[in-house]
Amino acid sequence: MSGSELKADLWINEYITSWDIYTHGVTKVLAYQQTPYQEMYIVETGAFGKGLVLDGKWQSCTVDEFIYHEALVHPALIAHQNPQRVLVLGGGEGATIREILRWNTVEKVMMIDIDGQVVEACKQHLPEMHQNAFEDPRVELVIADALKVLDTTEETWDIIISDLSDPIESGPSFPLFTKEYFTKLKRVLNPGGYVMVQAGPISPPEVGDHARLVSTLKAVFDEVTSLSAPTPSYGRSWGFALCSDVAINTKPQPELVDKLLSDKTKGGYRFIDGITLLGILQTPLYIRKAIAEETTVYTLKEPPKFFGTGAMS
Amino acid sequence: MSGSELKADLWINEYITSWDIYTHGVTKVLAYQQTPYQEMYIVETGAFGKGLVLDGKWQSCTVDEFIYHEALVHPALIAHQNPQRVLVLGGGEGATIREILRWNTVEKVMMIDIDGQVVEACKQHLPEMHQNAFEDPRVELVIADALKVLDTTEETWDIIISDLSDPIESGPSFPLFTKEYFTKLKRVLNPGGYVMVQAGPISPPEVGDHARLVSTLKAVFDEVTSLSAPTPSYGRSWGFALCSDVAINTKPQPELVDKLLSDKTKGGYRFIDGITLLGILQTPLYIRKAIAEETTVYTLKEPPKFFGTGAMS
Amino acid sequence: MSGSELKADLWINEYITSWDIYTHGVTKVLAYQQTPYQEMYIVETGAFGKGLVLDGKWQSCTVDEFIYHEALVHPALIAHQNPQRVLVLGGGEGATIREILRWNTVEKVMMIDIDGQVVEACKQHLPEMHQNAFEDPRVELVIADALKVLDTTEETWDIIISDLSDPIESGPSFPLFTKEYFTKLKRVLNPGGYVMVQAGPISPPEVGDHARLVSTLKAVFDEVTSLSAPTPSYGRSWGFALCSDVAINTKPQPELVDKLLSDKTKGGYRFIDGITLLGILQTPLYIRKAIAEETTVYTLKEPPKFFGTGAMS
Amino acid sequence: MSGSELKADLWINEYITSWDIYTHGVTKVLAYQQTPYQEMYIVETGAFGKGLVLDGKWQSCTVDEFIYHEALVHPALIAHQNPQRVLVLGGGEGATIREILRWNTVEKVMMIDIDGQVVEACKQHLPEMHQNAFEDPRVELVIADALKVLDTTEETWDIIISDLSDPIESGPSFPLFTKEYFTKLKRVLNPGGYVMVQAGPISPPEVGDHARLVSTLKAVFDEVTSLSAPTPSYGRSWGFALCSDVAINTKPQPELVDKLLSDKTKGGYRFIDGITLLGILQTPLYIRKAIAEETTVYTLKEPPKFFGTGAMS
Repeated sequence: MSGSELKADLWINEYITSWDIYTHGVTKVLAYQQTPYQEMYIVETGAFGKGLVLDGKWQSCTVDEFIYHEALVHPALIAHQNPQRVLVLGGGEGATIREILRWNTVEKVMMIDIDGQVVEACKQHLPEMHQNAFEDPRVELVIADALKVLDTTEETWDIIISDLSDPIESGPSFPLFTKEYFTKLKRVLNPGGYVMVQAGPISPPEVGDHARLVSTLKAVFDEVTSLSAPTPSYGRSWGFALCSDVAINTKPQPELVDKLLSDKTKGGYRFIDGITLLGILQTPLYIRKAIAEETTVYTLKEPPKFFGTGAMS
Repeated sequence: MSGSELKADLWINEYITSWDIYTHGVTKVLAYQQTPYQEMYIVETGAFGKGLVLDGKWQSCTVDEFIYHEALVHPALIAHQNPQRVLVLGGGEGATIREILRWNTVEKVMMIDIDGQVVEACKQHLPEMHQNAFEDPRVELVIADALKVLDTTEETWDIIISDLSDPIESGPSFPLFTKEYFTKLKRVLNPGGYVMVQAGPISPPEVGDHARLVSTLKAVFDEVTSLSAPTPSYGRSWGFALCSDVAINTKPQPELVDKLLSDKTKGGYRFIDGITLLGILQTPLYIRKAIAEETTVYTLKEPPKFFGTGAMS
Repeated sequence: MSGSELKADLWINEYITSWDIYTHGVTKVLAYQQTPYQEMYIVETGAFGKGLVLDGKWQSCTVDEFIYHEALVHPALIAHQNPQRVLVLGGGEGATIREILRWNTVEKVMMIDIDGQVVEACKQHLPEMHQNAFEDPRVELVIADALKVLDTTEETWDIIISDLSDPIESGPSFPLFTKEYFTKLKRVLNPGGYVMVQAGPISPPEVGDHARLVSTLKAVFDEVTSLSAPTPSYGRSWGFALCSDVAINTKPQPELVDKLLSDKTKGGYRFIDGITLLGILQTPLYIRKAIAEETTVYTLKEPPKFFGTGAMS
Repeated sequence: MSGSELKADLWINEYITSWDIYTHGVTKVLAYQQTPYQEMYIVETGAFGKGLVLDGKWQSCTVDEFIYHEALVHPALIAHQNPQRVLVLGGGEGATIREILRWNTVEKVMMIDIDGQVVEACKQHLPEMHQNAFEDPRVELVIADALKVLDTTEETWDIIISDLSDPIESGPSFPLFTKEYFTKLKRVLNPGGYVMVQAGPISPPEVGDHARLVSTLKAVFDEVTSLSAPTPSYGRSWGFALCSDVAINTKPQPELVDKLLSDKTKGGYRFIDGITLLGILQTPLYIRKAIAEETTVYTLKEPPKFFGTGAMS
């Protein structure tokens, strides 16, 4: 409002739509790189701590990333109850594997990210996010094109977390929100396993994108549940899709979840617990309606196109 | 991101903090007024439909206001199960009373708003919001200072909805988030009644404001529950506080809620139903923690001060 | 800089290039119209008074328009010394004809503007600009396509002022900065007459546009002089081109100019006088160099394309 | 205008007034430092090349700095005709001394800048600006508070160039636009010498600041002439004041100036020459009027306060 006192000179604008801009005031630019795959900034913001920005889109900020990463990781692992082998696609900051490593049942985490330069920069500049997760002996980091690894690997997984940047044109994740990609994930999923996919914003002007991703996943998996979490540094809440060929319990008892987390993980949660999980599994009505009416299946020939453009071209 | 095509020349910046700006592209300015209490715009936005802006803060937009207003109104009425007399403080657009009027149990709604010029402008320019609610014979609109009405009225209410603009300095709602004000609400609340208060954003950088409001309410009411809903036109999710001197069921059975809504209301919901209600009642862990650690009680002497400044001075 | 206190919520962004944005804080929107030719705002700004914005570009503001309009009009009339018949192309606000009418030698002014709705809105909302110039009996206002009028008219003129909006794609002035258009102007120019053309910004990143316009004019007129004036509401200085088939004196004696203005005009100048005129006729070196190296001639087939897009399509 | 395609994600906003923002799109942040005196960025912009930003204000950009620096330096040296000893206050980028060193008459240049960290960063990141001027044996760089040096030095100078950042509160130049400071300059000026002062923007909303500086200088020097140059990366034209106790020729013959520059300097100018100099010496009428009406004299007790705030506090 009028009379507002601004505290920054340097700003990063995220163009959410052609009509919506979320602007973060920046106090310091820690790293800038044009990698072969994307344009990267790591900055200090005034309100959200340090943040990673790829192709102009905020990936995560230290002040609120716990919401995104705890919501992304634990619902699938809790659903499985005894996760041992976990595959992560994307997840450059290392916060996704950090959350997985809380589980003492986990024996192996493979993280595949296409952009080694981004991973290196995060290792160096964002220790708050990875918390040395990359050093954990259970972790194998593979810098490669996920599509190629998925085609050749013989390893299989209890849990797969698809933590990719959004599918923008000329961005590295453009083909990775398609039926073909999700089918490859299913091939390497163990029976009784779960897949969790970051699945776009759920704001009313954009909920169609989320619904189409869920619809695409339903073409591959028997069970798909939409979840969401309040992620303010993105300027709106974010959607996820939990997928499996076994039933997904959307009314887990909070007390049992809390006991499971207490028994099998090292704790320290800030977002997730039994109550929060019960909450985020209750998909709001307008999202359920959008999903129910949706029939689109994204394919490599007709992939999703989120607002924006990447640096590859 | 780079290469983004913008579609507006006229923009409204909402200064969320000194470091965060949410900018809405505007396609048309429908009304502008400097009232005795605040500066008002009613505009058409590119992404969120028509919106009302007071003192530089978005109050509601036609594309996503259903989330805010259904979350604000129905949890209290559902908790009560048989609401007959409802008092609304603020609520200029008329969308709050529109939601209340869905209930066929309701016999009387009194809406008290200080700013008659804003209400008139909304009546004229935002028919999508009020949907002629002001014409309903059950509604009594009182243009007055809520504090004065509350001091003198003999009427009492089953439900009170405090739908005020944020407590910014030199704004009309500045004294209305205090122990004194909430105590006045309690005086006119029927036994077994419920009060619902819009209670600020719940994003991590701002959750302290919400926690302090909840703490203040706990100094007045026996039971206070924090809720939130994903309200993208504000750039983050919004918090509410449901208060009562009787117990609040935070695990309502969705089927029973759906039956109640079906029996006693005319329906047409887009956000609320049994599942959504169960979800929003599960306060995320970090909010519960912030509330648990908070002891501040806001008073007229030390009221809350949200970021920004109003036009009164 | 950090700590800056902003006083507006509503802002108009002018996109100067893909990398430069000049943002004016708006205090009131006086008029908005989508005409058949362009999108129009008339607003009150915080720093520059009332302003006219067409297709997202500032046309003029009451606080600094005197610089633009006095620089646009008087150099040609002073050069002529006895202007009687003046033709204006464009000039919707009426400030251009206001300046011309200062001259008591002037017997007839014809103003041709394509957009009658913009002219009407300016008449109503910008009296500071036109100062009732439209009521002067010497003025004939013609709402028409300049190209068509120029093809059929038998009238000829001592002075022609081309006060058009910039040549942006899908804007109304797109074909009007070409050799063909300037040739039509020359056909209706009396012997010894002068043509003045608003000719784009002269900032180093954009000076090529100005140089190409001057080069195009040189293909039509024997003498062309580049001038510029400091026009802050455009975010940079603006260029003009004074054209004739007779010699142009670029070192006029200030005292003689002042005497001419005193004898033949009603005075009241804020920008122009003998000294100022001498100054703006001394084209800075980098502009002279850019012009000297330029050979482009804009034609209807290959017209100039300034940054931006108009509303016609 | 609507439909504009933006090419940056990172932006630096310069707050010109509470109502005017000039935003430069940034492609790379080359250096960031919080020095004891100010906050510094050196960045690559999309349109204006590399630029130095101090306390949120653009100091100079490689694409248009030639306009500022040639206008700042040469008018005084040309007026003197045989400058041998030149003192520079401020001028961190080294472009001011670069211009002075064009003169083969110059034997000694002393540059006093308070902020050695800014000078170092410019040496490293802005070779286009200094062009190794710091290595010239005629140059003595003194990192010190100008006020203290001026109080103690016994050296005197033919020319003094005051190339300071603007007088913003808590900025390092805050006391340096006062009668006391200018009096100190005069003490070390040789008879027949000239002082040139960067003297703020000349846009109509800000011309009062410029007029007050000129008025202050008139309280110290017998002759003061206002000049200005079109400096687009500041979003408006910039003013200077040329001061002396001997007469200042404001109508120099271009041919004589060109001969002087050809005889005594190594050339390579892009902005200044005889014609340009004649032009910029013709102060526009509204500036002359503002100066004529102004009587303020800034003193240490009542110094000028430009819009903004520095990082010292």
